[in-house]
This record gives sequence, C-alpha cells and structure tokens, in this order.
Amino acid sequence: MSTSSPEARADIGVTGLAVMGRNLARNFARKGHTVALHNRTQSRVDDLVKEFGDEGDFVPSTSLEEFVGSLKTPRTIVIMVKAGAGTDAVIDELTPLLDEGDILVDGGNAHFEDTRRREKDLREKGLNFVGAGISGGEVGALEGPSIMPGGSDEAYRTLGPILESAAAHVDGEPCCAHLGPDGAGHFVKMVHNGIEYADMQAIAEVYDVLSAAGFTAQEASDVFRRWNEGDLESFLVEITADVLAQVDAGTGRPLVELIRDEAEQKGTGRWTVQIALDLGVPAPVIGDAVFARSLSGDQELRGATGGVLVGPDRAMGDVDRDALVDDLGAALWCAKVMAYAQGLAMIRKASAEYDWDVDVATVARIWRDGCIIRARLLKQISDEYAGQNLPTLLVAPSIKDGLGERQEAWRRVVATAVTAGVPVPGLSGSLASYDTARATRLPAALVQGLRDDFGAHTYRRTDKEGSFHTLWSGDRSEVSAD
Amino acid sequence: MSTSSPEARADIGVTGLAVMGRNLARNFARKGHTVALHNRTQSRVDDLVKEFGDEGDFVPSTSLEEFVGSLKTPRTIVIMVKAGAGTDAVIDELTPLLDEGDILVDGGNAHFEDTRRREKDLREKGLNFVGAGISGGEVGALEGPSIMPGGSDEAYRTLGPILESAAAHVDGEPCCAHLGPDGAGHFVKMVHNGIEYADMQAIAEVYDVLSAAGFTAQEASDVFRRWNEGDLESFLVEITADVLAQVDAGTGRPLVELIRDEAEQKGTGRWTVQIALDLGVPAPVIGDAVFARSLSGDQELRGATGGVLVGPDRAMGDVDRDALVDDLGAALWCAKVMAYAQGLAMIRKASAEYDWDVDVATVARIWRDGCIIRARLLKQISDEYAGQNLPTLLVAPSIKDGLGERQEAWRRVVATAVTAGVPVPGLSGSLASYDTARATRLPAALVQGLRDDFGAHTYRRTDKEGSFHTLWSGDRSEVSAD
Repeated sequence: MSTSSPEARADIGVTGLAVMGRNLARNFARKGHTVALHNRTQSRVDDLVKEFGDEGDFVPSTSLEEFVGSLKTPRTIVIMVKAGAGTDAVIDELTPLLDEGDILVDGGNAHFEDTRRREKDLREKGLNFVGAGISGGEVGALEGPSIMPGGSDEAYRTLGPILESAAAHVDGEPCCAHLGPDGAGHFVKMVHNGIEYADMQAIAEVYDVLSAAGFTAQEASDVFRRWNEGDLESFLVEITADVLAQVDAGTGRPLVELIRDEAEQKGTGRWTVQIALDLGVPAPVIGDAVFARSLSGDQELRGATGGVLVGPDRAMGDVDRDALVDDLGAALWCAKVMAYAQGLAMIRKASAEYDWDVDVATVARIWRDGCIIRARLLKQISDEYAGQNLPTLLVAPSIKDGLGERQEAWRRVVATAVTAGVPVPGLSGSLASYDTARATRLPAALVQGLRDDFGAHTYRRTDKEGSFHTLWSGDRSEVSAD
Repeated sequence: MSTSSPEARADIGVTGLAVMGRNLARNFARKGHTVALHNRTQSRVDDLVKEFGDEGDFVPSTSLEEFVGSLKTPRTIVIMVKAGAGTDAVIDELTPLLDEGDILVDGGNAHFEDTRRREKDLREKGLNFVGAGISGGEVGALEGPSIMPGGSDEAYRTLGPILESAAAHVDGEPCCAHLGPDGAGHFVKMVHNGIEYADMQAIAEVYDVLSAAGFTAQEASDVFRRWNEGDLESFLVEITADVLAQVDAGTGRPLVELIRDEAEQKGTGRWTVQIALDLGVPAPVIGDAVFARSLSGDQELRGATGGVLVGPDRAMGDVDRDALVDDLGAALWCAKVMAYAQGLAMIRKASAEYDWDVDVATVARIWRDGCIIRARLLKQISDEYAGQNLPTLLVAPSIKDGLGERQEAWRRVVATAVTAGVPVPGLSGSLASYDTARATRLPAALVQGLRDDFGAHTYRRTDKEGSFHTLWSGDRSEVSAD
C-alpha cells in the first residue's frame, strides 16, 4: 500500500469516463467537490477537462498511481466501467495502491452476488467496497440520478454526503440513501430495472392496442402526453409521448414505425426473474416482460410464424375511442402497480434472506425522482410505506382502492385485446396476478392432488394438520405421510 | 481400482432403494436382468428381496465393495439418490472401487450443469458417467418409464439395451433413446418437467373455470374423463379425472376441496425458467406456471389480499355449460401445445449451444409413453417431427391447423375468465405467446425507442442497415451509432 501524497486534494475520484462516468464526474464537480479523473484511454480525461473544465474543480491524471495520489484520505473512488470482468480488473489494479479505510464504489450494474463477493474480499483487506446502483441514464447522471448504495456504515459516512449532493432531490430530500450492507444497493437497482422492464412492456402493449384501434403514432403520443398530467405522470410515460411523436426526417413517417421491433436487453431484467425464482418470490409480471423481449427478438420463431398462424386481424370494430383511452389508462396504472408490488416483495424477501434490513419506504422514497421509473405513483407508494411495514403494496389503502376503481376497466382492456388478437402478456399477466392474490381458494389444490397421484409428493389438508398421501394405485384410502 | 471378482454375475446394479430405485430395480429384474442391490440402510435391500425376490434374479449386498464385486464388467450402476450433494457423495465412494470403462448412471433429477461437471470429472478418470432422466413416477419406474439418457456412445452400447428393455414401449419402440453427450439427458428431463408444470397449471385453471361455472368436482371429473377419450387424451388428464372424483372418506366431500391450495415444487420447473432466460429462449408459459405455484404458496401475500382486493365474484351468469366445456377443451389443448412448443425450442437451442445434436423428433418419440406428460398430442408431435427439423412446433401443419381451429374458443375462455375474475395466467399467457408469435409487427419497436431515449442504447431500422441513435436531449436528429 502506498501512503497518500502531500498534494492530495481531490474529494472523490472517478475512473471510467464513458458517458455515465463522465456525467457523474461533472455532476460531482458542479456540486463543489474536487474530482479526480482517470480513464484507461487518456483522451477521455483530456476531452472532459477541455470541454467541461469550467464546470468545477477537476484533477486529471495520466496513470492510476497519479489518480490515487491525488485523492484525500480516506480515498473515495467511483468505478464506472462495464459490469463484469472489467470491474474485477480495475479493483485488482487499484487495491495495491490503496490504504486501509479507503472506499471503492462500483457504480455499474453488477450482479449483487458479485458485489457481495467483492465486498467480502476487500473487507478482508481493510478496504470498503460499496456497490451503488445508479439510475437516470446519461441525463440523470449529470443532473441528478437516483443512487442506491449498499456497503458499510463506515463507508457511507464519507461517501454518503457526496452521493447525496449529486442525487436528484424531492422536497429537499436526496434520492440517495444507504440501503444496507454489501449487495443491498445493487439488488435494489436490479429490481428497479426489473420493474422498468415491466413498466415499459405495459406501455408498449397499451400503444399496441391504441394502434389496433386506429390511433396514429401522433394520436397515441397525445394520449400519453395527456396521461402524463394525471395519475400516470412518470418519466417513462413522458418519453413515450416524445418517442411516439418523433417523425423520421428521411421518410416523414413516425420513427417508431421504422424501428425494428426486436427489443434487446442487457441482463438486469433476466437476473431479476432468475433471482425471484431462487428467492421463491412470485414475480411473473417481470418475467412476462423479460420473455416478451426475447420473444420479440426470436427471429427464427417469428420468421416462421409471423403472419402465418391463424387468428383475428386486430380489428376492434366501432370502438369508443375516449372510453378505450380511459380504460387503457386504468389498465396501465394497474399493471404498473403490480410490477411495483412484485418488485418490492422481492426486496423485502431478499432483505430478510441476506440480513440487510432494507427499509422499503426508503427505497420508494429514493425512487421518487432521478431514476427511470420515477413516477407520481412512487410518491404515493412512498407515502403509503412511510412509518409502516406493509405485507404487500397491494393492501396500502390508496393502492387497494385505486386498483378496485380501475379493475373493471383493466378487464375490459384485456378482454378486448384478447378478442382482437393483440398480444398483451403484461396486461393480462398482471391481471392474473391480481386475481390470484384476490382469490380465497386456488386450484393449486388440484396441482397438489396430481403431484400426490403420480409422484407420492403428499399434500396437506385444510381441516387437519400433517401431510397425507392417498394410495391412488391401491385402494385409494388416505394415509398419514408424516 | 479393484479387479472384478470371479463370482461377478449381475448385469446392472442399483444403489439407492427408495421407491423409485426399488421399482426400477424390480423392473430390470422382471425384464430378465440380474440386478445387484445396494442401499445405505440395509433393511431396504432385505425388504426388497423378501417382498419381491420372486420377480427376478437379485443379488443383495451388505457393502459397496460387495455390491461392486457382484457386477459383471464393464459394470453398470444406477444411482437413485436425492439429487444434489448426495449424488456426489455416492460417486466419490464408488469411484475408487471401479475400473476403466465402468458406467455410472445418475437416474435422479440432477441439474444438467452438475451432470456436465460430473461427466467431465469421471471421463478424466476413465469412467463413463451417464445422466439419465427417468419419468413416470413410481408406477412408471416399475412398469415402464420414459428414460432420457445422455452420456457417451460407449456407455450407451452397454447401458442402452438394459434401459430400453425397462422403458415403456409404443408400437414396439422403446421410450428410451440416447439423446446426446454429457448433460443432454438431464436437460431434456428438466424441460419435460417444465412442460409438466405448464400442463398442470392449465389443467388447474380449466378446473377453476368449471368450478366458477357451477360444476361440482364430480362433474368436472366427468368432463376430464370424457376429454381423455379424445384429442386431450393424456396421463395428466386421466389422473385429473381420478383426483377430482376422489371423495374424502371422513367428510364425504370431494378430496380436492380439502387439500390446501398451496402448490409445492422441487426445483426442475424453476431451473427450466432460469435456463430459458440464460439461453435467451422465450418460455413464458413455463414461467407463468412456476410463478403460479409460488403465488399459491405465498401465505404472507394471500393472507393480506385474499378476499380483500376488489373484483368480481367469479359469477358467470347463465352459461351454456356444453359450449363452455367445448371451449375449455380447446383452450386446454392450445395451452398444452404452447408449453410443448416452448419446451422443444429450449431443447433445440441448448442442443446447438452445447453441441449435443439432440434430435427433437426422438425426444417427442420417447415422451409418447411412460412419462408424466405422455399424451396423444405427443404422438402427433412425434409424427410431425419425424424426418424434419421444424423451426418451431407451431408450424407443424396439423398443429398449426389445430391451433387455428381452436383459437377463437381459447379467446372466449380467457375473456370469460378475466371478466369473471378467475385467474388464468397459463391460459392467457399462452394465448399472449401465440398472438406474439402471430404478429407481423410488435410494439417492441417502442421499447427500443424508449431504451434509446433514456439510455442511448441505440436501435436498428427496418429500412436500412446499421445502428442508430436519436439525439433525444439535443436537436432530435438521428445519428449513426456504428
């Protein structure tokens, strides 16, 4: 380990100056922090200083040693590289240059298990490692993202004030809070992205139904624009209005009609579903959204079946456009709520599983602004969770009532789409989750009966304790299986 | 390594004599093979010989050494223990006792990645390791299961004839075939189970709709019994009729109404979905079924929301019962087909990914009988795949036509259930998959536009090659992103 050089004067360092790292560094500097800069390719450091040097106090460096040497101790370094092996490489290079108590922050979309591993490794070396989810895209990174840090209390004492100053603010409160130890921050960010997938899928389905009902892209844009002034107000609804309104310069056609209809993904949505399965938390709304993307990109399947399989031609007959818009707005709100409910349930379960003690109210609070899923609904959710630990978002009074008022419209939308042949996996799947949660009795009892029949897996009864097995291949009497 | 003892005379050995192992050992013996027996708890060996010793030629043993010594070389040993660490423990104990060329078969539900690891380890020691999926429950194990072995060609030369003799047969053909190297067999078995989850979920939903429409359990049983004489003929439909007809001796009520409605699971369904996500193969129908089980078992959620959330009371008004039954039968057939299509797509993709060269036609052929998902539909699928490599099951002519004839009924069922508040995640999710596959244009284009807006993730266009980005926060012109 080196000792810090006497001319060390930077408050925080950023290594990895692609668009997110660069904007985050500028954000820190604009908030009055002295920011050390490092990038493997030197030109990115130079370009940043040349273009934005007047925004604040930057300390450029030409080597990792110089970069580390320019930081006040305990040093605080934010790593902004592509998640994966690159993160480990940077950590390995930095570690020998650091002193006990220094703080390494991974601001990428790391898998929370990787963050747990790295935190443990570095803790054993006396270093603080903080996995911090950062949401808001490039604009958010510059102007105020939502930041979801995990890691130790000790690290947060130094790091917290800087991150909080850079985060978005709502009513004077930063959209950044210490969520829990080790991987808690990256877990929460992952779930944020899973919810984002579900939210975007529901939006896309609503647009699809509008299209099938004859709305032009501009008319659909107007609908989303209007919704953005009401309960559906959110960043994603706002930019949906923007994207749908965009006209391609070359053809004069709506851009959305010229974009290839194959949705891509980068991993966090997939992880969310895989981890929901590991945790045993039902998250089908997120699952359907992730699979909807892979279905859209399955060229072999779609090439064989698109326009080939038999079904209705999306015609909706004489539809009352205003009524349809109202119904779609209601359905979209409900689908969003279901995605949030399942995502928050995952956080609750993981927090118990990993002893993180994450406060769901805090999560909702720091998602109110800055992040991609920021929405008026999150203010409502944050208010509902304040001071209480709800078993599920669905029973928060204003949420329960909101769903209750809208559920008939939601059903009409699904029935209409299903009849017209418009695929609505998100809207129908979220409604199925709602009706499953509502049910006082599920046919899962039959599933248990079948499992007992073919696999002697036993079942429990509603009227007595214990496990039972029916001798299905014998005299069909019931025996205790305890 | 030991050398084989002179009195070695058994053709095959089974270690692990719980119900599946015991029945498989009896099956081998009934087919004329001399079967060596071993179990950690000696009484299971003794009990088997005492109760069933007259069924064939058994060679009991009191130690692993004696067990191994009783086997002809190359020795063939089937391990029938609970999947996981237990399998590794048995392998570790057996390995030093074996000779080069001996064959270890894991007949449990191992994760195919574990099987790949074990196969590689043992191959390096000169041993053959075969992961063999076995389906059919305890009755199948005894009377003829469907067997899905992976492993080497060398191993199959010795092992194949024994397994094939013990498997179910259709028209003289065994429901057992060498599917491919290393983990291919366990992968196929895992997907079999994933399809089984989806099939059972669809069946349960159909029963739930029948209940909501006023059918008693016995009446619902009669419906399934009748269906089992037509296109829906299958083991699961048959035992559904049995389970629904079962009357609880103590109360005189239908047993299904007394079974707790929390479906359990043992892992293969969850793995199927997780691996589908890893492979990038859309399998939402299986995902919805797995999550439906975890939703049913989510006591905290259901305790808070069951009977609390607002919605319709499942009333269906004056329903035409015969028409409803016809529609439900059609919907069930379609949902089953979608589950098979997604499962077979997974096998196709994994086979390419892992260089297994699994023949989908062979998979369908060995699933025709013996296994839990055996069904008339599988004979149809097997015929359709014979001699051709379809891009998807959905375009097999008789399948495409079958879906086309039934899709309106499927839509009516979903619309009816959704309107009445009966949760049908499987029936609606499979329909969404169908309509997604059918679509010539998906709103995934909007998702790509949104991703480009907030994250500069770029998009491709339908009218020119390359990747593009619109400067959403700038002048909204489009730039090349290549």
